[in-house]
This record gives sequence, structure tokens and C-alpha cells, in this order.
Amino acid sequence: MFFAVFGILLLASQVIAETHSPALNLMPWPASIKPATGSLPIDPTFTVVLKGSDPRLQSVAEIFLNDLRRHTGMLATNLQVATGSQAGQLEIQSNAASKNPQQLGEDESYTLTVTPVKAELTAPTTLGVMRGLQTFLQLVEVSPQGFVVPAITIDDKPRFEWRGLMIDSSRHFMPVDVIERNLDAMAAVKLNVFHWHLSDNQGFRVESKKFPKLQEMGSDGLYYTQEQVRDIIAYAHERGIRVVPEFDMPGHSTSWLVGYPDLASNPGPYSIGREFGVFDPAMDPTRDSTYKFLDKFIGEMAKLFPDQFFHIGGDEVNGKAWDSNPKIQEFMHAHGMKSNNDLQAYFTRRVQKIVAKYGKTMEGWDEILLPEIPKDVVIQSWRGQKSLADAAHQGYRGILSSGYYLDLINPTSAHYAVDPFTGPTASLSDADKQKILGGEACMWAEYVSPENVDSRIWPRMAAIAERLWSPQNITDINSMYERLSAVNTWLDAVGVTQNTQYNMMLRRMAGDDDIGALRELVDLLEPVKGYSRYQLATTKPTSLTPMNRVVDTARPESIKAREFAGLVNAFVAGPIKPGMEAELRAQLTAWKSNAENLQPLAAKSWFVQEVMPQSQNLSSLSAAALQALDYLDRGEKPPAGWEQQQLTLVQQAYQPKAQVLLMVCPAIQKLIQYSAGTQVTELAIPQRAAE
Amino acid sequence: MFFAVFGILLLASQVIAETHSPALNLMPWPASIKPATGSLPIDPTFTVVLKGSDPRLQSVAEIFLNDLRRHTGMLATNLQVATGSQAGQLEIQSNAASKNPQQLGEDESYTLTVTPVKAELTAPTTLGVMRGLQTFLQLVEVSPQGFVVPAITIDDKPRFEWRGLMIDSSRHFMPVDVIERNLDAMAAVKLNVFHWHLSDNQGFRVESKKFPKLQEMGSDGLYYTQEQVRDIIAYAHERGIRVVPEFDMPGHSTSWLVGYPDLASNPGPYSIGREFGVFDPAMDPTRDSTYKFLDKFIGEMAKLFPDQFFHIGGDEVNGKAWDSNPKIQEFMHAHGMKSNNDLQAYFTRRVQKIVAKYGKTMEGWDEILLPEIPKDVVIQSWRGQKSLADAAHQGYRGILSSGYYLDLINPTSAHYAVDPFTGPTASLSDADKQKILGGEACMWAEYVSPENVDSRIWPRMAAIAERLWSPQNITDINSMYERLSAVNTWLDAVGVTQNTQYNMMLRRMAGDDDIGALRELVDLLEPVKGYSRYQLATTKPTSLTPMNRVVDTARPESIKAREFAGLVNAFVAGPIKPGMEAELRAQLTAWKSNAENLQPLAAKSWFVQEVMPQSQNLSSLSAAALQALDYLDRGEKPPAGWEQQQLTLVQQAYQPKAQVLLMVCPAIQKLIQYSAGTQVTELAIPQRAAE
Repeated sequence: MFFAVFGILLLASQVIAETHSPALNLMPWPASIKPATGSLPIDPTFTVVLKGSDPRLQSVAEIFLNDLRRHTGMLATNLQVATGSQAGQLEIQSNAASKNPQQLGEDESYTLTVTPVKAELTAPTTLGVMRGLQTFLQLVEVSPQGFVVPAITIDDKPRFEWRGLMIDSSRHFMPVDVIERNLDAMAAVKLNVFHWHLSDNQGFRVESKKFPKLQEMGSDGLYYTQEQVRDIIAYAHERGIRVVPEFDMPGHSTSWLVGYPDLASNPGPYSIGREFGVFDPAMDPTRDSTYKFLDKFIGEMAKLFPDQFFHIGGDEVNGKAWDSNPKIQEFMHAHGMKSNNDLQAYFTRRVQKIVAKYGKTMEGWDEILLPEIPKDVVIQSWRGQKSLADAAHQGYRGILSSGYYLDLINPTSAHYAVDPFTGPTASLSDADKQKILGGEACMWAEYVSPENVDSRIWPRMAAIAERLWSPQNITDINSMYERLSAVNTWLDAVGVTQNTQYNMMLRRMAGDDDIGALRELVDLLEPVKGYSRYQLATTKPTSLTPMNRVVDTARPESIKAREFAGLVNAFVAGPIKPGMEAELRAQLTAWKSNAENLQPLAAKSWFVQEVMPQSQNLSSLSAAALQALDYLDRGEKPPAGWEQQQLTLVQQAYQPKAQVLLMVCPAIQKLIQYSAGTQVTELAIPQRAAE
Repeated sequence: MFFAVFGILLLASQVIAETHSPALNLMPWPASIKPATGSLPIDPTFTVVLKGSDPRLQSVAEIFLNDLRRHTGMLATNLQVATGSQAGQLEIQSNAASKNPQQLGEDESYTLTVTPVKAELTAPTTLGVMRGLQTFLQLVEVSPQGFVVPAITIDDKPRFEWRGLMIDSSRHFMPVDVIERNLDAMAAVKLNVFHWHLSDNQGFRVESKKFPKLQEMGSDGLYYTQEQVRDIIAYAHERGIRVVPEFDMPGHSTSWLVGYPDLASNPGPYSIGREFGVFDPAMDPTRDSTYKFLDKFIGEMAKLFPDQFFHIGGDEVNGKAWDSNPKIQEFMHAHGMKSNNDLQAYFTRRVQKIVAKYGKTMEGWDEILLPEIPKDVVIQSWRGQKSLADAAHQGYRGILSSGYYLDLINPTSAHYAVDPFTGPTASLSDADKQKILGGEACMWAEYVSPENVDSRIWPRMAAIAERLWSPQNITDINSMYERLSAVNTWLDAVGVTQNTQYNMMLRRMAGDDDIGALRELVDLLEPVKGYSRYQLATTKPTSLTPMNRVVDTARPESIKAREFAGLVNAFVAGPIKPGMEAELRAQLTAWKSNAENLQPLAAKSWFVQEVMPQSQNLSSLSAAALQALDYLDRGEKPPAGWEQQQLTLVQQAYQPKAQVLLMVCPAIQKLIQYSAGTQVTELAIPQRAAE
């Protein structure tokens, strides 16, 4: 369903007109914009004036000025916060302080007015100031006079109050600097919830002082100290981001059981999970000692994490651990439980009481929605809008994650098309609609390391952030991609590494500084989609498998292939514009030599050798496409059998090899069909696993 | 003199044969290498075995494994230190612990033997182990089987015991992360002294608890806390690097006087220096209160900085502050001092006594070498080998910095040609030669910010490191440049930002992601040389001037221009090889369109507009060079006046504009002269200020 929608939208995007000025690279796009004339210069003496009583404004302004310095290359001694009655070019007024800890639903609106002499930013709360300052930063542009901000008036507020990113720090540990730079990037696109998946089968990542064997035996030494956790929470808070911790239970909990096997439904010993997928081990919901443990543990963590919400996971319990323990079966029988679902409901209710005892609101995945769960829990849905609509009908609040799974390596447009209010949720009553709090993208970490995680999150995350912040009618895909490209570049200055690491990884695989041919190829490759990376692997990857191959380097979405497809679509749709064929020919001619140019690197590198079949396919397909253009130029019909032969080649070339896909195949198929005079069809992406 | 030598070497380099295997990208090149057959695989289970009693080996091995992970893209859970009696692929043996604090002259030698099944690294001290591990890292290469280290035996030791880099953190403050990543890079090329220039007119950068107004009033809030200093010293120590602090006195001290005007020779008030150059203010050497202050201050800093050496600067006192104070004149008269030199000698002797009282050996610039200074002080020479030879004759130890000033923006080959034992030092007796401890490169910070400082240090610093470590006969410039290119790439993984920031700065100036034409131009530009950046400026730069222009972005040495010059040299030297002219033509044809391609960016950016004259020159010169090739192809003599006209164009194009130089001018002059049949001459670089 998800992908069918995407296919239609991709085609539809070709005809949707621009709905706003393409010159402003704002993302998320604001609720209301009124451009004006002229621009405000940003020079080294630029000064910020703070009005309003919230003492926090000072640090908010300092973080802003640091960002502004990075975006303009100015020094720590340039750009100041005014002292005393000093005047300035940007006046910031917050009418009230925002809360600490930050609360769900605080006002984040702001008004920003820029004239050629002065900018004014006003907001009901300091949170709105933070959002407005990010807009101001995105407005900064270079001009013939140096850096400026164009004159403009913006009134803005978010569509949803919960706009999150989940990072799985369990399957692969993400060090503090990775988290912090992603918090910076989140703030840059106005996200407000960092959901931190802190425990799973593959690792328990937080220091517990009450149960130190959790991190000592369950983490390979890779965990956050409580001091680091507090630092990260403070860092997020300074950027207007709530931190919601998740401790997944009763399943997904093997790493807990290494140090505390008594928690388990079956006798140990246990060791840290290395495989991926759903594991059998689960906590024993029938013993009081389990809840005693969880009470102490949740009590400790509820103190460490100040947010109102506490995520207990609850997903994917396969029940095998319970089925195989006669005592558990006995317990179920004695309590009239007919299924493992009943047992999980019992567990969830008891855990909810503990969470509530420590003043928190419980959150969990769809599976926690079982009979007799209190109405204040929040459901995070990986199942989709129907699940959310059902929950809302029953009175539960929910957030959408289905369609926002970044680990499935889908194109930005696919995520952009997913709205919390499409399908079953669209027809909810207004009151029930209030229960849909927003959405959250998920970066599950089977196939990401600290080195490439940014490239799997960014820039796609920025488009999801727009979906959750901007008015529902902001859906123009071309405008989104245009602005996304600018935001992507701009995120480099924020510090995320999706672009810098790409070149570094290519050079490392090449063992050479001259990576032209390799980059030419990898620019056109994408990792396989959905869960097929695991399905296709001959040796199943584990959490110990290095991630240094082309599949780990290639971007989730090939912008080069997308641009080429756009050119081909325009070409086959006619009328043919001057220069279009020349552009196609230049590109195809370059690609035709790829295999020849890449061979010297392949000869010396295993990593390059692995993708030589893709390189050879690129060269063959480019040759075929050039032939297609030749036939068109000569007004000739290709000889019998030519088309079928080439289409077979395209089909083969579009099969995954080395777990990557050559993304120019569909466009080249179109050129072949067009020259043969047959109907131009869209080639379906192979190996897309169903969700 | 310095530059004349360079010119000759550049030409000579074309004919020097390779003296060692070009396949190994080692820098510094080891003292002895014996290649063997086969290679040792580096796979995820690679394990290090520690032999030897130094407990520090554990942390040394862990730092090494982190580096190895970065160079291979492996995970924190891959690559381990063996526990118990576990076997491994790399055995490390240190015969004795190195000292803490690290001492001048500790043994840094090591022997590394790699076979296809095992590597062994043995060293007399743990310092030698650190050096050998860096060699091991540089040996890691990609192969058809994945990452490997080639079988080899290396016996290695440094030529000089003092191999340093000075970073000026005063003129522009360099945050902790800048220092730490530079320490990583220093360790990677076996440097062992970080000289930290911590105070100057423009800023006092260390927290003093005894005299807090030093940092509170003298630093714009930009200083290192004592805790940060201790962390950096520990960080350096773990990498085998000594940290020598410099507190410059009695001149270069305006920033001290802001908080403590009583130290000055003239009444205050003083404010933090913003201008560059030699300042008038100086401490008052005639008052006992000055020495009381310095005694307390040096006592505090001697404790904070554990190194044996304590640098008191001592350079560039212009004497004006002393001349203008009658009391000081009176004092001089009363003590029979005939010149300011005598007064500085008095000051230096008294300060030396304080430094010695706290158990330290004093170091200073050439100017401290005055009558009656104790023989144990070390002279850091910005004046050159003669100054060092004179000092050695008098019994003083010295280190060479003349010729290693990175801020003068000279090509790597120029620095590489500078040897502590050329000229006056070459003829020293063996005993006096012992007094030349080594050398130290200096990164003065008038024109560097945290953003571009790495690009001014690296990769040129790696070649200086080789000069100071490797045997004196390792001088092949082509081999150096070849290996430097690999080391440059490799330093990216270490974390220095000379390459990543280049693209970021270009994109920022362009305000666009499509920076092809801008990079094409800036790849051929270099900042003006020597001190001409200041001399050429119409508005004199200060420490508050942003560094975000092309001159701040262009690399100190254009490798593209160097390669083009090499091609032209080969072309005009004949015999012409097939493909050579085609290569020249392809390059020149691309450059010919630069102005046209760059114009759209120039139209919207002040920063690009500033270098449009250079772009137009590049296009015109490329057109002229293509004409020259046309004449040659047709076997025609150019018409009368053509050559002169073109040479005038070249001369004009080689003038600095926007403080940058277009580095292809000399090569294009050669093509023009060659086609005209006149003598081919080397165009001298303009505006080189004498040192």
C-alpha cells in the first residue's frame, strides 16, 4: 500500500505546479510568508537584543549566534548579544518562559519580521523563539553585498505537537557526539522529540547504579554514563527537544538477561544478542521478582529522564519463552489467560502501574494496546494509520511511525507522502483527531554505524520534519527536493556527516584519492530496500559485521538517478527541447566508460570488485541507451528483437548485486521503449519486502 | 636565500630518480625497510597481544585500535586487545615504560616485522611502540582480499629528538577540539612536541587562579580552563607528545596588561590588541613587583604544565615603552645599561632564575640569547641556521623554526628543503651538532580561524615531520609529493579538516551546492606569500576580521597547478609523448570557460565576485595557451608582437588580486615562450616579502 501510493505520487509530481517562491530554502515551510523588498545585512558587528524575562534567552541567543557564525564563517568575537541599552539588528522577544522539563503541547509559534534595517522575532514562549531563530538561520543567504537576510514577514506554528526522531542506540552503539550532532540537525528542522531506544537484544546502553550488571555485562562496554545522559538531555533541552527513553520489555530484552538471568522466562545463561530479527527470550511476567526489579529500575530511570513520557517498547514478543515454561503455563491457566496476548496484557498493566507510580505517562508500540490498559498511554504505531484510528476510537493518543522507518531505505518522496491524516485517520472526528499527536521517524540500527548513521537519517528526515510541521497542503515534491538539496548542504555546517563521510568511505574503499569513477557509479546506486538486505545475504549479517562496503556507503536515494529520470521523462513526453538530447548523450557517454575507468580500482580493492557487475551493467545500459538515441535520430525502427534483448538486459541489471541497486535502470528502459515505439512503462523496483 | 634554494629544487626534482618503493605511503619515511612477500589480513577478529610490563600499553593499544577502526571502517566491537593467554595477529613488546612527564631524548626507536601470519612490534620504550603503531597504520592498505598489511621488516628511529609544531592560540583562539585533532594528526606523523603559544597582545588564553584578571579581562572569554589544559596535556601524553607552554614576555604582552596595568612600563589603561604587528607595550623590567608577579604566575603555570621546558618568548621588544619612561631610563643609567638589549638581558636573567627555581629549563626565541644567560636554556630560532650555529658555538642548545613558518604560505617543497643541518650548522663539530635538538614548525594565527587552521598546517606539516624524523638523504621531492597526497587523504580519517572544510567554505561562498566552476578556479589559487597579505590590504585586517573569503579558503599550495606545471615542463622539454598535448588541451579548454561558468555565482555572491578577475585571467590565459598549441601544431611562428602581448597578459595575471595568486601563470608563460621559439623561463612569484 505504502509503495503503491509512492509510485503514483512520483509520476504526479511531474505536473504539480510550484506553490511558493523557490528562492527561499526553508524547510519545514512556514505556515505563512509575506516577502518584502530589500534585505538586512549580516556583518561582523551584527547584534542581538533580548527582550523578555526568560533568563534562558541568553543561552538560546548564544547557541543561535554560534550557528550564525558557522553559516557565515564569522569569528567567535564577531556577532554579539547586546549588553545594557545597546542597540541591535535582531530583537528577540519571548512573552513567557518555556517549561523545564519541556511539556507536550507547549506553544511553539512565532512571528518573524525582517526589514532592511532590523529583524524582530516575537513568540509566546521561548520555544517559539528557538523555532523562529532556525527560520532566521535558513533565511541567511549570500548576496552581492555579502551575507543578508531578505526582508520578509513570517507567521508560523507547527501542525503537530509531537515531531520526533527515534535513534536505536542498542543494535549499534551511537557515541555522544553522534547523538549531539543529530540533536543539532533535529533542532535545525524544528523537530521536538528525541526518542532514544536504549535497550534491545544487542545491547543495554545506560548505566544503572541499581543494577550495574545491566551495562557491565550487557553492553560490550559501550554505554552512556548517567552523567552523559544528563548532558545529552540538557543539550536537547537547550534546543527545544524532549528526550523520551525507551527500555524495551518484555521481549527485545536479551541484553538485560546476561547480567540478570533471573528476569528471564527460561534458565540462562544468556549472552548479548549478535543476530538480528525477533528473539525468543522474554522477561517472566508471572513472578513478583520481575516487577520488584522493574520497580527499582524504572524508579531510577524515571529520575534520570525528566520527560513526562516513558517508553516501554512492548513489541514483537513471539511467546516461545512463555510457551516452553510449564510454570508460566500453569500461571496462565490459574489466572484464566487464554493466550500470550493475555499474559502480555497482564505484564503491561503491571508495568504501567509502576510507570505511573513514578509520575510518568507510559508509551509503547502498537502491541501494548490490550484490554484494560489505562487511557492515558500513548501508542507509537509501526502498523499504520488504521491502528492509530482504532486506538483513537478507543480513546488512546497515538503517534505515527509507519511510513517513517528510515532503515527501510526508501526515497524521500515516499516518506513525504505519508501523512498522519491519510486513510483511516482522515475520517476521524475532530475530537478523535486531537488524539493523533504527530509522528516519529525511526532509525533502527541493524545496518548503521556511527560512521554512516547520519547518511541514513539526513537529509530524508528533513522532509519528514516538514510533513509534521508544515500545513497539510505543502506537498509539492519538486519543491521539496529542491529545498532538500539546499538543506542538505546547509546541514553540513550544522555538523552532520552524511556528505563528508560519503567521500571518506569511497576513498577508503578505493585505497586511492582518485575516486572519480567509483563515485560516478556509487552516485547511481542505492542499498536494497525494505528487509531484503537480510533476506539477500548469503552470510547473515550480525551486529559484529563491519559496515564499510558500497552498500553501507551508497546513499538511500540517488539524486543523480532521480535527475536523470526527470530528464528522460521530459524527453519521452515531448516536445523535445533543444539541448535535451545532448545532455542525455553527454551523461550516457560518460557512464559508458565507467567499467573501463573503474577497472584499475577494482583490480586492487575487494570493495570495488564487489560492485564491478553493476559498473559493467551501467556501461552496457548506457551503450544501449545511446543506440536508442541513434535510432531516434535516424528515424529508424530498431531491428526485430533488439528491444526485447535490451529490456532483458535492463531487467537483469536491476536485480540486486552486492546488496545494491542500479537506479538508472527504469529511465533507460523508457529510452529503449521510446525508441522502439512501444509503450513507455515504469520498471518496478525489485525485492521490495512487504512491511 | 630560502626561496632561491626552493626554485632550484623544484626544477631538480624533475630528474631525481625514485629512491624507494612508491607503493608504500609512509611518511615520515623509516630509517630502514626490507619488503617481504605476502601480506597480513586485517579482519574483524584481528587481535593485539601485549607483552611487556608497562601498564600504559593497554591504553596505547586501545588508541591504536580506534585508529585502525577508522582506517578500515570496522566497529567498536571488532578488533580487540587479547585477554589472558589469547593469541593474536599483532604482538607488541615494550622493554621499558616511557617516562611521565615525557623527557627530551627518550628512545623512540622500534622494529616492526610483518609476515603473512603475524606482526611483531618491539621497542626499547613505549614511546617507540607508539611510533611503530603509526607506521603499522600507514601500512594498512586495501587489497583484492580486503584490508591487509604487506609483509615487511622496518627498523626505525628519529633523526632529531625535538620534532615540534607550535600553534598560536592567542591571535585567534583555538578551541579544545581543534587542539586535540591536531594532536592526533601530529601523532600520526610521529611529531613529539606541541608548543602552545598561549599569550600575546591579542589574547591571554589560560585560566590563572592566582591572577584571574589575566583571562577575565584579556581573552574575550575565550580561554582554556586549567581542567581543559590538564586534559589536553594528558591527551598529548597518551600520544607521545610533550606540551611546552609559551607565555611571551616582556613584549607581546598587551593582553596581560588589560587586567594588570601595573605590570606595564607605561600607565594604562590597556585594551586587548586587535591590530597585528609589533606592539609598543612591554612589561616593566625595572620594578621588583614585576618579578613578584612573574614568580607567582610562573610558579602556578610550572605546576600546571609538567614539561621540563618553559618558553618565555622574549621576541620583538621594540623598546619604545622603555624609551618613553624616565624612571626606566634612570634605572638603566644607574645600572650601567647602555641599550634596551642590556635591559632585556637583565629581565631575561631574572626570569630565568624564576623558571629555574620551579625546576624548569627556560626556552625562548633568538632574542633571549644575551650575555650571562645560563647555558642550559634552549634557543628557538626564527632567524635561521646561522643564529643556531652561533648559539651552539657558545654552548647553547637550539631548535630550528626559520623555514618552517606555516603562516608564510609557502609550498611544501620549500619547507621540505629546509634542514637543520644546512649552511652554517652543517660545518659544526659533532659535539656542537648535538646541540641542535631538532626543529619546530610555527602556525602563527593572524590569518587562521578554527575553521581553516587545519588547512594551513596540513598536509604541509607532514613533510616537515619527515624532514625531522627521516634520514637526511630522504629528499626526493616527487616521492614526497606522491606520499603526501596519500597522507593527506589519510589524515581525513584522523579527523583534521583541511579537506572537508574546503568544500564547505566553497559552498558557503557560492551559496549554492553546485560549486564546480568555483572549485575549478580556487583549486588553482593560493593566498599571497610571506607578509604581503597585510602589506597588500587596503583596510588592514585585525583579529576581528572574518576569515570567510577565497583567500582564507584557497589552499597554501595548489596541487592542480603543480601537476599542470609538471605536464608543461615535460612538454616543453620534449620529446613529446602521445596524449600529452591532448591532456593539455583538455585542461586548457575546460579552464577557458571558467569565467563564463563562474559568472552566475559571481552575480549573486560578493565572495565569488571578488575573484572574477582571476577567473577572467584564467580564461584568457587558457585561450592564449591553446593558441600557442595551435601555432605549434601548424608548425607556424606566431605573428610579431603576439608573444610580448601574451607575456604581458601573464605578468598582469600573476599579480595578486583579492590577496590570491593564480598559480598556473608560470606554466602558461612557458607554453607561450615555447611556441614562440624563445627561451623558456621561470616566472618569479610576485610579492614575496623577505623574511
